[in-house]
Amino acid sequence: MTITLVSSSKHFGGTLAKYSHVSKATQCTMHFNVFLPKSAVESKARVPVIYCLGGLTSTEDNFAQKGGAASRASKYEIALVFPDTSPRNTDVAEAGENSSVGYSAGFYLNATQAPWDKNWKMYDYIAKELPEVVSTNLSIDTTRSSIMGHSMGGHGALSIFLKNQNNYKTVSAFAPILSASTSPWGLFALPKYLGPHDPAVWGDNDVTHLLKHYVSRNLFRKDVKVLIDQGTEDGFLKEHLYTHGFINDIKELGIADQFEIRFQDGYDHGYFFISTFVEDHIDHHAKALGATLHQ
Amino acid sequence: MTITLVSSSKHFGGTLAKYSHVSKATQCTMHFNVFLPKSAVESKARVPVIYCLGGLTSTEDNFAQKGGAASRASKYEIALVFPDTSPRNTDVAEAGENSSVGYSAGFYLNATQAPWDKNWKMYDYIAKELPEVVSTNLSIDTTRSSIMGHSMGGHGALSIFLKNQNNYKTVSAFAPILSASTSPWGLFALPKYLGPHDPAVWGDNDVTHLLKHYVSRNLFRKDVKVLIDQGTEDGFLKEHLYTHGFINDIKELGIADQFEIRFQDGYDHGYFFISTFVEDHIDHHAKALGATLHQ
Repeated sequence: MTITLVSSSKHFGGTLAKYSHVSKATQCTMHFNVFLPKSAVESKARVPVIYCLGGLTSTEDNFAQKGGAASRASKYEIALVFPDTSPRNTDVAEAGENSSVGYSAGFYLNATQAPWDKNWKMYDYIAKELPEVVSTNLSIDTTRSSIMGHSMGGHGALSIFLKNQNNYKTVSAFAPILSASTSPWGLFALPKYLGPHDPAVWGDNDVTHLLKHYVSRNLFRKDVKVLIDQGTEDGFLKEHLYTHGFINDIKELGIADQFEIRFQDGYDHGYFFISTFVEDHIDHHAKALGATLHQ
Repeated sequence: MTITLVSSSKHFGGTLAKYSHVSKATQCTMHFNVFLPKSAVESKARVPVIYCLGGLTSTEDNFAQKGGAASRASKYEIALVFPDTSPRNTDVAEAGENSSVGYSAGFYLNATQAPWDKNWKMYDYIAKELPEVVSTNLSIDTTRSSIMGHSMGGHGALSIFLKNQNNYKTVSAFAPILSASTSPWGLFALPKYLGPHDPAVWGDNDVTHLLKHYVSRNLFRKDVKVLIDQGTEDGFLKEHLYTHGFINDIKELGIADQFEIRFQDGYDHGYFFISTFVEDHIDHHAKALGATLHQ
């Protein structure tokens, strides 16, 4: 469970560092970026952490470089972990052929179908292995964790949160895929990763299905508030994200008051949208993590 | 002097748009990004502008995507223009061969030597043509302009400012090349662009030489304050940037009080450094531009 420093830059008083490590979950070398605030770097204070999950076509770099989150996180002394979005450099020849499956398209699930089932265990990687890795090697207190994500990473953040509600204080998302099992992206990727449509198997990797499942069993935490920002000019809104259907679903489930879903007028799907509102998301997480604003 | 919209995203209440246009100066199609704040977009208010010049290996995208400047500029209702760093798609075969000359390495000068002298007129492009282009086509008041840059772009910002002191309210730079004619980068590029070393010709493209020239003729504006941030862990500091020599020079010239040169402990040469301090630079420009902080 050792990690190797690839690069490190001072950033907002702390450091933005890239690490590589050999992952047991994905059976390959993974990279992640981490922002450690000043107190974690200088006095080895163990700080709370927000996992920031990227979307399709992203690596560990996009959110770290373009998201603008460290500015605000530094003021709360919160760490940010930016994982990669898939295994890399595997033996799977077709992994680089399509932007919706394979490299940069891990969907934060555990694949069960060949040739993906050896490496594409991104759920285990993000939910289980990575917290151990950062807790063991970095000045991060993983008992104070939360999770956010963008698009496919929003699907990842919400589904991982729902399955591990005691491991994360809260969750938020930008333009999340709220029903991977009915999204055209998911309809392409899920058969390859999980086999032909099986409501139980696919539903276990679908935010809406998971939420219905946990609410129906009274297993959705009542103290959690979920923040979602969605641009109205997002070209994927109508066909891929299921935002409007989800809003109806949470009303029917009687949990609409636990969701703050903000339609941001005129914004699209990209990082110019994320960076505009990321400060609100950091504030949302800081509150749940019990972090105080300094300066 | 028409421009074509390539892409546009809402960003901090305004828009981050990319335009293309056929440049007379560089005889090719150029791209630039521009951040227009809300008032310029919604009520066509003509707003002040800061030109943000990128460094070697950059395009018009790096500063716009990673610099983090729009967050603060939006609060002052200031526009940001992010030009490309060189001509593109020319007939010059060797333009893509080396990172210090050719594409992404225009050095903000007017080349006089073949094969560069047809297209590599980045000084004319930035100092003369681009202000006309943005004034004609966008809701920008170029009578309230200022200029900043990073590395090679810091050299560009300072040298263009010095030669056009009445066109820009102020100037600032991150890790600027302060003596292009003695920097190893410049020693590689300047012979190709300008011919063998000629103190007058090369000096006209060297910040330190230009400053001495204008100060000695009492032509350096006494009301201007220059802000420069320099990381102490910048790997290019010792060999390429001439920062320490420049500090001695401005003392000898008796103008040290017009320069705020801040050594930022532990920071390197990249955008994680820039984004950390860009807010201070926007504040510096806003003051000179007479812009007021809203919200």
